[in-house]
Formats: sequence, C-alpha cells, structure tokens
Amino acid sequence: MEHSIADIQYCESLFSRFYDIGSLPSGGVTRLGYTEAEDQMHQVFTSIGKELGYGSIQDEVGNTFVGDTASRNFCLVGSHLDSVIDGGRYDGVSGILAGLMILRWAKEDGLSLPIRVGAFRCEESSNFGCCTIGSGLVTRELHRQDVANLVSKSGETLESIFQRRGYSLNPPAISGLMGYFELHIEQGKVLEECGASVGIVQTIAGPRRFKLYLRGVAEHSGATPMPMRSDALCAAAELILELERIGNKEAIHQSVATVGVVYNHPNAMNVVPGEVELGVDIRGIDLTSLDRIEAEMKDAARRICARRHIEYLEEKLSEFRPVDMSRGVQLGLEDAAQRLGISSRRMMSGAGHDAMAFPSLCPTGMVFIPCLKGVSHNRAEFANLPSICDGARVIYEFLKGEAV
Amino acid sequence: MEHSIADIQYCESLFSRFYDIGSLPSGGVTRLGYTEAEDQMHQVFTSIGKELGYGSIQDEVGNTFVGDTASRNFCLVGSHLDSVIDGGRYDGVSGILAGLMILRWAKEDGLSLPIRVGAFRCEESSNFGCCTIGSGLVTRELHRQDVANLVSKSGETLESIFQRRGYSLNPPAISGLMGYFELHIEQGKVLEECGASVGIVQTIAGPRRFKLYLRGVAEHSGATPMPMRSDALCAAAELILELERIGNKEAIHQSVATVGVVYNHPNAMNVVPGEVELGVDIRGIDLTSLDRIEAEMKDAARRICARRHIEYLEEKLSEFRPVDMSRGVQLGLEDAAQRLGISSRRMMSGAGHDAMAFPSLCPTGMVFIPCLKGVSHNRAEFANLPSICDGARVIYEFLKGEAV
Repeated sequence: MEHSIADIQYCESLFSRFYDIGSLPSGGVTRLGYTEAEDQMHQVFTSIGKELGYGSIQDEVGNTFVGDTASRNFCLVGSHLDSVIDGGRYDGVSGILAGLMILRWAKEDGLSLPIRVGAFRCEESSNFGCCTIGSGLVTRELHRQDVANLVSKSGETLESIFQRRGYSLNPPAISGLMGYFELHIEQGKVLEECGASVGIVQTIAGPRRFKLYLRGVAEHSGATPMPMRSDALCAAAELILELERIGNKEAIHQSVATVGVVYNHPNAMNVVPGEVELGVDIRGIDLTSLDRIEAEMKDAARRICARRHIEYLEEKLSEFRPVDMSRGVQLGLEDAAQRLGISSRRMMSGAGHDAMAFPSLCPTGMVFIPCLKGVSHNRAEFANLPSICDGARVIYEFLKGEAV
Repeated sequence: MEHSIADIQYCESLFSRFYDIGSLPSGGVTRLGYTEAEDQMHQVFTSIGKELGYGSIQDEVGNTFVGDTASRNFCLVGSHLDSVIDGGRYDGVSGILAGLMILRWAKEDGLSLPIRVGAFRCEESSNFGCCTIGSGLVTRELHRQDVANLVSKSGETLESIFQRRGYSLNPPAISGLMGYFELHIEQGKVLEECGASVGIVQTIAGPRRFKLYLRGVAEHSGATPMPMRSDALCAAAELILELERIGNKEAIHQSVATVGVVYNHPNAMNVVPGEVELGVDIRGIDLTSLDRIEAEMKDAARRICARRHIEYLEEKLSEFRPVDMSRGVQLGLEDAAQRLGISSRRMMSGAGHDAMAFPSLCPTGMVFIPCLKGVSHNRAEFANLPSICDGARVIYEFLKGEAV
C-alpha cells in the first residue's frame, strides 16, 4: 500500500536511532544478547517510548516493554533487539519499529488500544548457543536449569551475568496477554520470488541444537605418519559432509541441517588436530523428518568416530517442537491485509522467533516482510522501510478489528 | 650407556629450571616464539650459562648464545626454547640441555673446546604460521620480506614486535661456524619401536605451508533451504578429506599432509558458514611426492570450490626443500656412538628443525633421542633424561675427536 511520507520518514528516523550501536568496520553490527550493545538498544527503545508519551517496564530478565503499561490485559507486539555476530540491522529491529509505528498510529487515530511493544532479550543463539532466552524465561518455555550454566562468548555463565545485573532466572510468568503479534523479516527468498508484500506465518520450524565433541590424538604433523594418526578434524570433516548429505535428503520435507560452529584444538600448523567441537543446528516443520536427521547424525558420528579411533560425545543443547500460529489470527491477519490492499501469502518460518513461546498462552500470529535476496544473519541484510510499514499496518488493522 | 648420578641429577636440575615457565592448568606449556614466556626461557638459559662461568651473547633477532663467546671460530650446539600451544617440555629444551651438559663435561675434562650453545627464537610455527624464524634470519635462509608481515596469535606483525624489542629483520649473517650440531627428541616412534638409543639424522623433510581461503555466503541457517546454500565449511570439509586421501596415497614415499588450522566465520549456531580459512602443512623427503601433493591439493580445491560456487584463494606461506645432513658428520656421530657403546640408527626427520638452516654454512648433524610413544607437540610429551645424556655424549665424543 501507499504510505504517507511522514510515516516513512518517522520509521526512518526510528531506524537511524539504533543504527550505530554495535557497528563494525565491516559494515555489519554485533549486538549480542545480554551485552552492553544490547543494553544500549533497549535504552534507545525506552527513550523513543518516552518521546511518544509512554512509560516503560523492564521485567525480571531484562526484557523491555513500552506502551500501555497500565492495563491489566493487553496485546503484545514483540520482537528483539540483539543480533548475530557481524549481522544486519533489520533482524528483530524491524519488529520493534513496527510496534512503535502502531503505537504512533493509534495515538494519531485517537484510539486507546491496550497495546504494549516488547523487546525480548537474547533471541539469537550467537552468544550462548541457545535462542529466545528472554521470551522463553518469562513464558516458562525455558527454565532456570535449561540456561543457568550456558556460557557466553566472553566466557561467563548466564547465571553469573544475571546475578551481576540483578535479574532472576526464575521470573514470574508474563500475565494479562490477550494476544501476541510479531513482525519479522523473512530471512529467506520466498516473498521476494513470489512478489507478495507480506507473509502470514502458519508454522515455525522447530530447531534442535547439539554440540558434538571429537577427541583424537594431538601429535607432531611432520613426524606422525598418515596411518598412525587419530586426526579429530578429519573425523569432523566426514561428519560435516554426512550431515549435509542427510540434510539434502530431507530437504523435500523442508528440513535443514547445518554445522555452524567449529572449534579446532590446538589449531596450529604443526600439530595434528587433537580435539574438535562442532555446533549443529537442525530445523524443520515435520517431526518425523527431524527425528530421522537426529538419529542419522548420531549413527554417522558413532560410525565415523569408531572407525577412526576417535572418542565421541554429544550434548543436546536445546529442542523446540515446530509451533503452529493460531488459526484465527492467521485468518484475521489475512483479512486485514486484503482490506488494506496488501498482497499476502501463507508460509512457514524456517527461522525461530520469540513468537514460538506464546501460542500456549494466547492467540499468536506472525507477519513476514521480504528482505533483499533473502540474506539475513549477514551484514548485507536489507529490508525496505515501506515493507515494515506494510506489515505494521496489517497488524494494526487486525488489532483495531479485534478491539471493536 | 651408564651415566653418573651426578650427571643425571645435574641434567634434572637444569630441566627443572625451565619447568614452570608457560605452564598451563592442563599440565602442558605454552611458550610461543617472541613472547614473554620465550623471553623467560632465554633468561634462565643465560643464568645457567653464567653459573657455569660463561658469558652470553644475544644477537640481532633475539637468539641467545652461551659458552665460548670469545673465539672467532666455534662449533655451535643449538636448538630452541619456544613451544607449541599446550605442548610438552622436551621439544627444543632437550637440545639446549644437551649443549649445557657438553659445556659442563668439557669444563670437567679441562678441555677448552670452542663450543657455543645456541637457543634460536621461534622454531615452532605456532605463533606466526612460519617455523625456524630465529635461525632462518641469521643464516639468511629467511629474509625480511618473508617474515615482516607475519601476524602473531595476538594480532601483531613480526615487524612491529621486532621494532618494539629493538631487533633487526636484516641481521648480519652468523659467522665463524666450524660445525652445527643439534640434539632433538624424535617426535615419532621409530627409535622406541626398534630399540635404538639414538638416531643419526640423514635428511630433514621439507615442509610446505599454505593458507587456503574459502568464501561462500553467510545466511540464516533456518531460513536457507539446503539446495540454495554456498556453505564454505562443507567445501572445507571436502577439501580436508581430499588432502587426507592424497596424504595416505603418498605415505609410501614418507610424505604427510595435514590440515592443522581452521578458522570458521562467523562461527555461530544459526548462520551457514560464510568464510573458512585452512592452514595446510605438507612434508616429506621426496621432492616429486611433495610436488604431487601440492598439485593435487590445488586441483582438488579448485574443483570442489567451483562445483559448490565457493570463491577460492590460496597462499603459500613457506617452502623448504628436504635438507641432507653432512655425510661426514653422520659417519662421525655414528662412530662416536659406537665408541661409547650407544646403539644408533640412521633415519629421516619428518619434523623440521633449526639444523635445516646450517648445511649451506658448515658441516651439520643431528642426533635424535626417543620420546614416549612418539608423542610430541602435546602436553603428554616425555623423554628420559638419561637419553638426553646419551645423545649429548655422542655429540661431545664427536667434538672431542674433531678437536684432536
């Protein structure tokens, strides 16, 4: 749809407020969850809320809420303000901008809708190897014992970080929710390729995460003949390719398998690698496909490591089931888009989102907007601000209808 | 041979002087070249020399010499005092202990042999990805332009480190050498398995080192379907296994091929790896075999990366030809061992050593001693102190014969 110049410019001014935080010479940003860069993002968010005339609340795990903080029951428009390492500026931030646009439009329209905009902490798994920590803890989808001992990139446990900050790993559950709505960039190419303006999410894929530990023998690379080696990296390489093969086989079920993390020890030119740690991420919407990938990965790892005389250990870091968005909300958002003349398309989400934590508590829906070439978790990430306004308008239209 | 209790105890006391430097909780040591830990090793070396009644010289690149520093012409008994990351306490240090034992014996025997013991800087490639920097620079085997821009693990160039320390990347060549002799642990299992007390080295394998850079596209691991990926890590995994296969094929020529270093970027759970850097080490004594490995590696890398739509770049960091030890010295050391009743065996060295830099300047020889299970470049490295005395006696016996 057409947006007023004032709307686009306001959206742009909001976007620019966050722009420099965590900026890198590369052009990307690093705003890891529960670090100072994320704190700065939340401070800017609170300031913008104040300028719009709203108070703010920070909950027991550091999530920030702006908008109608007085009403007992409210609709929550949420997303996150952290990023991956050397990531883009639209992942998460777009949803917060959408929420702020909705607050502004409601004010302009003189409507007193009970809306809060929520910025959840540490949605990305880049800092602790575990995603949606802020939303997971306050919805009880994550528990103290799941996350207390997770260690940040800088080597501190989440428990210690929470103690230092005066947060609680056992916060009260969020209450009063009449609905949860989230706008997010698609992080894929479906919308761009089919030319739809927004996506209405049906199901969010369930990620499963693992650490795999391989231990061989670190020996001199010059004086250890090939047949006498137990090279942990060669075993890891075989496993990486096995996982790729399994992922390719399961692609027809919309599943994916990724080795995103490698730590090689001692990582020196003249030493046969003695220990390797791999971080594995498996996702999909088909539970039987996910089970197959997990089982085949474990089989492959045991087989490869036994043949190569490598010790093997695995650890499941997290598992989320695929999560369906509320059927009523899907239909309502679709109707809203149609009323506004915004083309929409139902689709799945391959990426995980804070919205996963809410369907057990309240009607929940997600709106996707396109991002250039589907690139995300990358400094080249880009989305059009009018697309953010499109998606925000769809949610706003739906909320107005619900309030009637 | 039998050694006196006094000799063994003196050797033990010398060993203990170096023991704690760079110690890690793991039990290993990290004494990287041109770091403070290596400086401390050199200071202890100088102190021991002083206690033996000898002066010391530090040359323009930080190498330290103890013993007869007055004679214009001298025999050099050399090795190094740096280590790999989390390495053992015998690699390098054994050769320095041997040199100090020889100085002591000469003094006890009242012989004024023109012997210097030399500790060369940065023999291991663990800090700069390049080996034998200290000995290479003063023998002109390495040049300023080869090493100035190498970057240490802590991110500083060698040039900047040299400036800070007042060293020169263009030092005068070492002069007055009548011979170079080095004792070193074997870092393999040949001596242990054949029950020989010392090895007389015939040829030192020529290492070639490469950095391979692979660049794909870093994308969201959940939202990027398997067939749409350019995963740099999967390409790297294929290449690692290809190199292992090529190395196995060339094992009959005593060649080896190792990927010891992996840097994966951005190394996050939720991002398809966008860039990978591999460090490759190829060694052998057969030039045609080395050439084949290098050519096949490059072919494999281009083929794999082209098929996977991965950008590929390679950089040769260093290349050393296999180096023959002087024939006369080999025979002399063998005779000396026989006179002393020490069993010896001629053999090749798979590992590189400072001794590689000297055959173009003077008669050069190396003596190997066994190390437990052949383990080296590892905290579990172990050698018997009487074995060090065996090897040192062989060199001393040879030097006495030469001086006659």
